[in-house]
Amino acid sequence: MTIEITPIYGIGEIGPGADLAAIFLAALHDAEFVLLDGDVLVVTHKAVSKAENAVARFDDDEDQRRAIIAGEATAILRRRGDLVITETRHGFICANAGVDRSNMPEGLLALLPHDPDRSAQRLRTKIRRATGADIAVVITDTFGRPWRKGLTDVAIGVAGMPALVDYRGTTDTFGRTLTVTEVALVDEVAAAADLVMGKAKSVPLAVVRGLDYPAGEGRATDLVRPADEDMFR
Amino acid sequence: MTIEITPIYGIGEIGPGADLAAIFLAALHDAEFVLLDGDVLVVTHKAVSKAENAVARFDDDEDQRRAIIAGEATAILRRRGDLVITETRHGFICANAGVDRSNMPEGLLALLPHDPDRSAQRLRTKIRRATGADIAVVITDTFGRPWRKGLTDVAIGVAGMPALVDYRGTTDTFGRTLTVTEVALVDEVAAAADLVMGKAKSVPLAVVRGLDYPAGEGRATDLVRPADEDMFR
Repeated sequence: MTIEITPIYGIGEIGPGADLAAIFLAALHDAEFVLLDGDVLVVTHKAVSKAENAVARFDDDEDQRRAIIAGEATAILRRRGDLVITETRHGFICANAGVDRSNMPEGLLALLPHDPDRSAQRLRTKIRRATGADIAVVITDTFGRPWRKGLTDVAIGVAGMPALVDYRGTTDTFGRTLTVTEVALVDEVAAAADLVMGKAKSVPLAVVRGLDYPAGEGRATDLVRPADEDMFR
Repeated sequence: MTIEITPIYGIGEIGPGADLAAIFLAALHDAEFVLLDGDVLVVTHKAVSKAENAVARFDDDEDQRRAIIAGEATAILRRRGDLVITETRHGFICANAGVDRSNMPEGLLALLPHDPDRSAQRLRTKIRRATGADIAVVITDTFGRPWRKGLTDVAIGVAGMPALVDYRGTTDTFGRTLTVTEVALVDEVAAAADLVMGKAKSVPLAVVRGLDYPAGEGRATDLVRPADEDMFR
């Protein structure tokens, strides 16, 4: 089955306290895009952070930026020059505790939402109520990774679908039982949506249609590998 | 712009020495799928490995499997029980040097193709000649990653498109120059295609249509972060 990934244009700057569900519904309406059951709405976290006022004042002072990052991080894994690899309170490992300046108004840094799974759930509930469509929501951020150059989008919040799909116990084409194949479904959804969202343009919303995913209520924190199972802490 | 990702069904088991381009062209023809300029063909490496005979005999003997992995690995980063995190001759860091049993006929293990970028280039050339369509090719494998649970597909071979897109020097919506935003485009393409390919089913080919990517000839080895720039070796 073909899946389609559509960016939703025309969403303007999002201010503190904005009703993100209402803004997205208006943009979908203007784009004449009618949501269907099973659609996955992929939302960049920066839209969520702005609406939830998860931002910090920033006077272009590097010491201040470092202090904000230190306040957001629960642990520092590595440090090299300006770059610190941190653990966040959610358990995510990422650069600079997710504190980011790009596509932010002057004088503000974006932080990660306080509880992105809950933000996703709230968005999902409001959009379901308004449209009747049984949709899922994935909130994304852009992370680096060891060993491979370049950034990819990953999921930091999920509602209405599993975060991981476990193929253990199913059989391959030769009838053998698959053993260790657990797929990070929502990270693949996040990466796929980034293909239409771009980095320089601010497209905070895309819709993935036609994706065949199992029922279930995952959380992005399901993706966090416990420290004692991690070989690269 | 909407992108579409379509799995191509009906491709049977691929034997050693098979003409992969001919097999794919026949399957595309049967699916009445006409390739267009700019389409990205995403191919699982296992199809390539089988066609190129990049396989090893395997008598279900664990010592033999360990020896094959040791032969494929150029370095061992970590070891825990049966799992070894290795560097391959291509420079990729992955589990078990890419040696894999799933979806392989009895008595064979899949290895990584010798030079997946070259395999991608060969496929691209043959398919362009046959169809006239200026397509790109991405060859994928399924890798784990530190810190986050679950596997995602990544690119191990590329032809006809850049592997990385560098946004440095472009400006964000507030007119500020983006500084460190280099996106792993082909890894996002690989992850996106995996959404229609599945793990238990053997769908070795998907087509990504409508993707807006810059001109350029990348290689998957462009994605390898040099050891001295890597904080997690």
